Amino acid sequence: MRKSASVHKITHISMETDVLAENRHLAEHNHEKLKGSGVRSVDVMGTTGAGKTAIIIRLSRFLMDRGLRVAVIAGDVAGQDDYERFQAAGVRAFNLSTGKECHLDAHLLDHALDDIDLAGIDFLFVENVGNLVCPADFPLGTDRRLVVISATEGDDMVRKHPMIFQGADLAVLNKMDLAPYMEVDVGRLREDYRGLTGGKELLPVSVRSGEGLEELAEFLLS
Amino acid sequence: MRKSASVHKITHISMETDVLAENRHLAEHNHEKLKGSGVRSVDVMGTTGAGKTAIIIRLSRFLMDRGLRVAVIAGDVAGQDDYERFQAAGVRAFNLSTGKECHLDAHLLDHALDDIDLAGIDFLFVENVGNLVCPADFPLGTDRRLVVISATEGDDMVRKHPMIFQGADLAVLNKMDLAPYMEVDVGRLREDYRGLTGGKELLPVSVRSGEGLEELAEFLLS
Repeated sequence: MRKSASVHKITHISMETDVLAENRHLAEHNHEKLKGSGVRSVDVMGTTGAGKTAIIIRLSRFLMDRGLRVAVIAGDVAGQDDYERFQAAGVRAFNLSTGKECHLDAHLLDHALDDIDLAGIDFLFVENVGNLVCPADFPLGTDRRLVVISATEGDDMVRKHPMIFQGADLAVLNKMDLAPYMEVDVGRLREDYRGLTGGKELLPVSVRSGEGLEELAEFLLS
Repeated sequence: MRKSASVHKITHISMETDVLAENRHLAEHNHEKLKGSGVRSVDVMGTTGAGKTAIIIRLSRFLMDRGLRVAVIAGDVAGQDDYERFQAAGVRAFNLSTGKECHLDAHLLDHALDDIDLAGIDFLFVENVGNLVCPADFPLGTDRRLVVISATEGDDMVRKHPMIFQGADLAVLNKMDLAPYMEVDVGRLREDYRGLTGGKELLPVSVRSGEGLEELAEFLLS
């Protein structure tokens, strides 16, 4: 039993290397396609329930107020809850279900982009499936990668998931308005993030109070 | 490029079927091993930051007060933060890092059980890696499977992740003490869970206030 399981493991690893190389290849293809149409883009990763959808809605309004044409691809395992939230908020959205997979990949995004008139878009948000593990390995070809966590999740998030924080351009700590009610050491999260990224600063944000959102929008446009 | 990616997909699916069958086989093996040593066990799944570790610590104390010998296998992608929290709380713990994988599997648990003196344990908690996608497919061979989510994560958690809720024996909604500060519709979570499971009731819990914890311990011992 043990031996057979080991064989599985080895096959699994070589398959994985293959899949990751193919994903990188398709990510480059997506990046060229987006750039070619003049579309700026960000992959929004993060924990389930950290507030990715709410943040994207706020950022979209900010960008739309500046005259930019915004669209969101709402990625999820099942359902279209996020898609409906975007539509209700007046943000143009496309639904992308993975079925079972715990992350989007460049191949799925490639197909989604085929259905979108990129010439009519200036900025594209891609909301990834909520977790801090799987999306790390699968860059989609966006300009930027963002990780969203929240102050209600404890202060060990960065230490536990180094890969996704290392691979992202910026990490955002949402629900700062709830931090006073939690036993969360925000300083520790900041320190862990600095240590892991060679000195980058975690951006504290609150969708409720508006803290940090303008700064985040500026980062996406910079 | 499209064609090559499709080929990957097909190979990936057949590999996956193989891996899942092997996992079920090893899960049965683990279950026999645990039962053979008179150990009751539960697989604690749930979102990152939902409070899995804190709940297990409280339940462990409850069981230890009743004279049961308790141990925890703390699963995580990286680090040993949870392991250290268990140790600091006086709960006997074993660390189990997956390296990169987003879930424990029966093979990893099989190895971990080899290092533990099962004759000295009455109840074993296995804390899975935090997310609502990957662990669903990989039963470990424990008596029970529990899903922990929190009231700070919004009210679409059940609808978005049907598989893990269907596959678990009970779902727990933690951080109920924070529900009044959130725009969360607990009734909707309850309804979604009932609908998905054919009438089961979501258990509201708060580690801070103690709500629901005794009921949860009783469920594990029942």
